[in-house]
Amino acid sequence: MSLPAEQAVLDAHYMARALELARKGRYSTHPNPRVGCVIVRDGVVVGEGWHVRAGEPHAEVHALREAGELARGATAYVTLEPCSHFGRTPPCAEALVKAGVGRVVAAMQDPNPQVAGNGLKRLSDAGIAVHSGVLEGEARAINRGFLKRMEQGLPFVRVKLAMSLDGRTAMASGESQWITGPAARSAVQRLRAESSVVLTGADTVLADSARLTVRAAELGLDPELTALAESRPPLRVLIDGRLRVPLDAAFFQAGPALVVTCATTISADYQAAGHEVLSLPGNDGRVDLAGLLEQLAARGVNDLLVEAGPRLAGAFARLGLVDEYQIFVAGKFLGSTARPLLDWPLERMSEAPRLKITEMRAVGDDWRVTAIPDPAPGV
Amino acid sequence: MSLPAEQAVLDAHYMARALELARKGRYSTHPNPRVGCVIVRDGVVVGEGWHVRAGEPHAEVHALREAGELARGATAYVTLEPCSHFGRTPPCAEALVKAGVGRVVAAMQDPNPQVAGNGLKRLSDAGIAVHSGVLEGEARAINRGFLKRMEQGLPFVRVKLAMSLDGRTAMASGESQWITGPAARSAVQRLRAESSVVLTGADTVLADSARLTVRAAELGLDPELTALAESRPPLRVLIDGRLRVPLDAAFFQAGPALVVTCATTISADYQAAGHEVLSLPGNDGRVDLAGLLEQLAARGVNDLLVEAGPRLAGAFARLGLVDEYQIFVAGKFLGSTARPLLDWPLERMSEAPRLKITEMRAVGDDWRVTAIPDPAPGV
Repeated sequence: MSLPAEQAVLDAHYMARALELARKGRYSTHPNPRVGCVIVRDGVVVGEGWHVRAGEPHAEVHALREAGELARGATAYVTLEPCSHFGRTPPCAEALVKAGVGRVVAAMQDPNPQVAGNGLKRLSDAGIAVHSGVLEGEARAINRGFLKRMEQGLPFVRVKLAMSLDGRTAMASGESQWITGPAARSAVQRLRAESSVVLTGADTVLADSARLTVRAAELGLDPELTALAESRPPLRVLIDGRLRVPLDAAFFQAGPALVVTCATTISADYQAAGHEVLSLPGNDGRVDLAGLLEQLAARGVNDLLVEAGPRLAGAFARLGLVDEYQIFVAGKFLGSTARPLLDWPLERMSEAPRLKITEMRAVGDDWRVTAIPDPAPGV
Repeated sequence: MSLPAEQAVLDAHYMARALELARKGRYSTHPNPRVGCVIVRDGVVVGEGWHVRAGEPHAEVHALREAGELARGATAYVTLEPCSHFGRTPPCAEALVKAGVGRVVAAMQDPNPQVAGNGLKRLSDAGIAVHSGVLEGEARAINRGFLKRMEQGLPFVRVKLAMSLDGRTAMASGESQWITGPAARSAVQRLRAESSVVLTGADTVLADSARLTVRAAELGLDPELTALAESRPPLRVLIDGRLRVPLDAAFFQAGPALVVTCATTISADYQAAGHEVLSLPGNDGRVDLAGLLEQLAARGVNDLLVEAGPRLAGAFARLGLVDEYQIFVAGKFLGSTARPLLDWPLERMSEAPRLKITEMRAVGDDWRVTAIPDPAPGV
């Protein structure tokens, strides 16, 4: 047995590996969380697993299968508390007990009310040594959407924007084109692929013939992850208050979508074409975006990506619904008459919303800026 | 004697140290270049020196003094070709010959037409082994202004801007205040201190009571460098086409300045108050900025920092006179009606100037973006 301090080092080491495995599920586990598991016996990794897709075995099951008899007396590292309930698969806590593991280390408790400590309790009741909270920050980061949905009943909302260095998105005439390069476009494809929902507005779909699909060839991922991303494409949601986008638009031709509108009379053509229409008028005559987020969370949406023009992206921002901005910055000036980043008129400096810029990194010839509202929404 | 490949490694090693010494002069050598020198004998550094201020000894002289008799047969590393002409000090090439050094390694030739290879030739003629071109890129970088003045008869023009994440500099009402924090302000102070000229416009001076001075306490430098920076404050240049700024403005009260105007009738009060006025009307009824740069270079200005509002900064940009933008970005949105980064209306995407973003780095809570026109001016 190692000393406590050494044990903590080893626990972090194996948990880091479990997190690496968990991240493999970033494009495919939703609505489930991304989870990884490592089983270690006498300093040797005897089993590894990660959750691939909802309805398929959890990380622990994969790892236990690989470990076989070697799991007996071993330590299992899991990035999320093992589940204690029968869902589409039997509870993992039970499986760990049956396999006879001696110790379970979890990065964090599962906030899912169906678990919420019961998994760890079940293990502990069975005489298994249990420890939680190893690399918890990292574990939370990979499941921000799942956690926000469990804890607040809302998805994690990320707004993707592309602008020139002087903060503009298109010329005044509306003239616009890809202002960022291929590496940035590939990064956007990955943002889409790891989201449960990609949301846009009628302006964008009408002006740019946007389809908002995930294009496998542009993901820049290995064949395994590409195939997984393709197997779980995000739901495409169109905010179209007055149902202006025709059904023959590229957006609708690209596959089934959810249309959210203020209109109450809906043509049966949408349904016939495979699309769902949700009427959700707000008090201001526009779509109730906050209400929509609640409904999407209730449907299991963890991560929502907004890819829209200044009007719709600005509306999310003004309503305080944004958790994170991903701003791609092109090395260009579009000039002082070009269109703004967000439609958000402000009169006084004191109204100016504060953000925390958490990262700037080069993406090909462009740069990617990550910023979060400060304070964060709901805080 | 080392093998050629090993000698190249050692040469780069000692030249890196010489460059480090040269950088100590960044706040004080102008109009002279920043130069460092290291003298090495049998693998031991026996002398080091750097040029401190114009009129004072050059780097080589300091290093030779320190080395004394040990310089005989040693290798001297200099970041710029030793001078061959009598200026305010005797030629360094001569001093190296007299000291009996065996080998001289220079990072680059001096483009100064009074030197331009003659220094190295003098050494070579005296039987000294001479090698040039070691870490030349780094050596050019620390003297960009001096080199541009020597090669093109123009100073290196850096434009400092401060903006919100959405590319705005102030509210529509003109309301503005420090949008960036203390670390960014300190970085701006250092930008000023390393410039030969800080240039601004009447708008900025009238609106913000700007003085554009270097404030020692805000530099964040050690006492030695702070004292050097204070001993060579940049010349403050005010573009005031119609002489709108009154002589009792804080800008004029802060010390002597150069005022550049379109006006041709100049009150004697300026001179009486210690200021110089230069009438330089352009064809468009505005100050001839390109002509001004030539005149400033002729006066020995290497590095010019533009700290102005969107109008004047925009004018430099539109005229293609900018070598580098230093943009401080605050984590804030000022909104779609706020003032633009640069007054530069553009109609079509094809007119949009391209930039290469070379660096983004955190400065306190803010970020600093370095961008250069692509292609660079004059290319």
